Amino acid sequence: MADTIFAGISPYSTLSSYPLLATETNPENASLVLAGVLVSLIVIYFASKLGGEICARINLPPVLGELVGGVVIGVSALQLLVFPESGNSASDSLIVNFLEKTAHLNPEAAESVFSSQSEVISLLSEIGVVILLFEIGLESDLKELIRVGPQAAIVAVVGVVAPFASGTVGLIYLFGIAPIPAIFAGAALTATSIGITAKVLAELNRLSSKEGQIIIGAAVLDDILGIIVLAVVASLVKTGEIQIINVVYLIISAAAFTIGAILIGRLFSPFFVALVKRMKTRGQLLLTALIFAFSLSYVATVIQLEAILGAFAAGLVLAETEKRKELEEQVVPVADILVPIFFVCVGAKTDLSVLDPTNPTNREGLIVAAFLIAIAIAGKVITGFTLFGQPELNKLAIGVGMIPRGEVGLVFAGVGAASGALSESTNAAVIMMVILTTFLAPPLLRIVFKEPLPTPSPENVAVETVQNSENK
Amino acid sequence: MADTIFAGISPYSTLSSYPLLATETNPENASLVLAGVLVSLIVIYFASKLGGEICARINLPPVLGELVGGVVIGVSALQLLVFPESGNSASDSLIVNFLEKTAHLNPEAAESVFSSQSEVISLLSEIGVVILLFEIGLESDLKELIRVGPQAAIVAVVGVVAPFASGTVGLIYLFGIAPIPAIFAGAALTATSIGITAKVLAELNRLSSKEGQIIIGAAVLDDILGIIVLAVVASLVKTGEIQIINVVYLIISAAAFTIGAILIGRLFSPFFVALVKRMKTRGQLLLTALIFAFSLSYVATVIQLEAILGAFAAGLVLAETEKRKELEEQVVPVADILVPIFFVCVGAKTDLSVLDPTNPTNREGLIVAAFLIAIAIAGKVITGFTLFGQPELNKLAIGVGMIPRGEVGLVFAGVGAASGALSESTNAAVIMMVILTTFLAPPLLRIVFKEPLPTPSPENVAVETVQNSENK
Repeated sequence: MADTIFAGISPYSTLSSYPLLATETNPENASLVLAGVLVSLIVIYFASKLGGEICARINLPPVLGELVGGVVIGVSALQLLVFPESGNSASDSLIVNFLEKTAHLNPEAAESVFSSQSEVISLLSEIGVVILLFEIGLESDLKELIRVGPQAAIVAVVGVVAPFASGTVGLIYLFGIAPIPAIFAGAALTATSIGITAKVLAELNRLSSKEGQIIIGAAVLDDILGIIVLAVVASLVKTGEIQIINVVYLIISAAAFTIGAILIGRLFSPFFVALVKRMKTRGQLLLTALIFAFSLSYVATVIQLEAILGAFAAGLVLAETEKRKELEEQVVPVADILVPIFFVCVGAKTDLSVLDPTNPTNREGLIVAAFLIAIAIAGKVITGFTLFGQPELNKLAIGVGMIPRGEVGLVFAGVGAASGALSESTNAAVIMMVILTTFLAPPLLRIVFKEPLPTPSPENVAVETVQNSENK
Repeated sequence: MADTIFAGISPYSTLSSYPLLATETNPENASLVLAGVLVSLIVIYFASKLGGEICARINLPPVLGELVGGVVIGVSALQLLVFPESGNSASDSLIVNFLEKTAHLNPEAAESVFSSQSEVISLLSEIGVVILLFEIGLESDLKELIRVGPQAAIVAVVGVVAPFASGTVGLIYLFGIAPIPAIFAGAALTATSIGITAKVLAELNRLSSKEGQIIIGAAVLDDILGIIVLAVVASLVKTGEIQIINVVYLIISAAAFTIGAILIGRLFSPFFVALVKRMKTRGQLLLTALIFAFSLSYVATVIQLEAILGAFAAGLVLAETEKRKELEEQVVPVADILVPIFFVCVGAKTDLSVLDPTNPTNREGLIVAAFLIAIAIAGKVITGFTLFGQPELNKLAIGVGMIPRGEVGLVFAGVGAASGALSESTNAAVIMMVILTTFLAPPLLRIVFKEPLPTPSPENVAVETVQNSENK
């Protein structure tokens, strides 16, 4: 095996695509996978900046531009960035075609390069949302979150119960849909995409406002509630009954994790600061913080929660240390290169063909979709107004902040379709609901928050982000 | 396909590993791959910081600690981080075992999770070295590099010719090795690992010294010469003759790329600055710079050069703009999270079993290795002394800076072994030479440079790096 040491990281592996060395095929692919990933990143960054800049100029949230930029380069339009999970093969990907034309990628190797490159980009996008939630946690205020905890809990619970109940009942009685698919579609209405809302709030400089913290707290709780709802619904579909023990397990582990992470984290944070202060090598603060964040993310995954919850908890804990400001400054460039990959991929993986009314299946779905969209928006908007007697709160903004379903809502559709519970048209309706709420929420949020707080200087966003958290 | 939109980026995909939803296997793997990558990164960051901090305390370069940290967690020792390319399977990886025990990874899925996770980590390490060379380029001074160009060229050419000639001749006449394997082993002596040397120079605050710039310039030229030497040798082995046309093509394309990238880059850079100034969204400078760097990397790959040469050229060009300082500050955290992955992976993929003298094949190789190591060191150390009449230069330091072969030298061994030109014992000898030069060079460099310039403050390395480049 000695001859393969260092294989795959060799800067020279390009050489094996050189005709003289055609005997080796693995290093050739390794080098072409790097080439494919670099081209994908160029396309992703270009789409995110072009979309973001256009949106910033027409007074829409830049993250909407990143999503739309993703749609434009993705499966629905240019097909530059497509993924095997959506049923696309190497020949559908314009990037793979480009590699074949320019970088001597031979067609036999194309499928394997395509699958590797897609895997790497998907994983970078997942790390992107982990880093985003870590950054959101860092910019959040644990004390404020605990203080708004009861309000966030009301918003989260109402935002799950109201759309679920009205959606399910409406589908059964208005559209004559059978109970099981109706329950599944209703469950898909409960989700909230914390990533999209948090990003818009950060762009509006409202993350640390009371409304912002209620929305973040509620969205985090909603994520946990969503996991429980999905488990309950899936168990109902599969066995016809609810496995109480699993539901209880999820509730206990979610509560234990959240409280445990914060308590242990608080015990650990003085040790963290002391350790970082004694370290002498480059990147000591950032890498130690990431070790902590990734560890909590892993623990969250292990107990069937989500990696992003762990990253958020880690950010919250480290936000309480004296290193917060320095760490925030260092996380900004890391988030800048990873987070756009997430949003552009969400856009690129969105298949707009379900919106095409010339397809009969879609037409049937469109009517159901219109109903679902109405419930999806109304069911979340009312959540803010359940917070009685606090006239200073922008209740509409809180409700609007809970609207986007994003990728989370689609998991319900995916699980539903895979289990056979959802018909094709109901499934299409759920997807339309998710797309619309996801793309509508950023501009709506901007409208209900009137205008951004102290306008960001275009010159130095790193500084601005830090100031933002200092101003709270 | 609608049901799979967003698949693979879903934060909820964890759920499918939940027993209730066992019907879906793909999302399950996707979530476990993320878990595997997170654990790998935790292990890599921990090893790099532990190794780096220990080395910093015993006055050795931290990057040596990252390499040794990699060896400790890699294939030679703990087997936490192993790679399929080295012939390891999922069951060899302690991280995969850990996932099986903690994260409900079932053994059937282990091989696929292992291969995906290894692919992602390998690719992150490749992006790491691309970012490293981009940062080195940013911290280099194009005018200074051009000024030291003739000296760098002498160092590079002597550093290729001297070890190649003496190594090949010695192997043939002293050890009776056949000409073809002798030429191959000789060729492996010509390489220089720019990554390791540049990193040590940066750690010693010597990157912008005249010696530092000569070493960087020579190492870059050496990379290009190495590609040419490898092409020549491989063609010789394969066809028994040298295909002049390919060699000429490589020389012309390398020269055209280097000059073209810098000229076009200089024309482009005012446009770059103007564009970045007009952009309003977060990360505008960093992402625009990375689009440029990745584009040049891709072009370098396409014309059979290396991605890292493109990234270096992009850094050089952007170093001349007024945005240099701001960009350097933003690249530091990105390099901090990606570059250690590269060095730890180099260590983890190093198989120290070739050094075991109880294995008879190794014993035969050990004598040849001793000879190769002597030539490898002497052949590079003399390069500095070919720069006559410049008494102010630390000539020993220049020669020592060219010693580490790193991953580059191993590609020669890999190609040689794959083509059947190298016997097992000669191959093992080449690998021993590479390991020793790689691990010896960092401490030797520190000795010949006496001590680091203005001692780095442990508190704020980002600022220090910038000051460093301002002070030049």
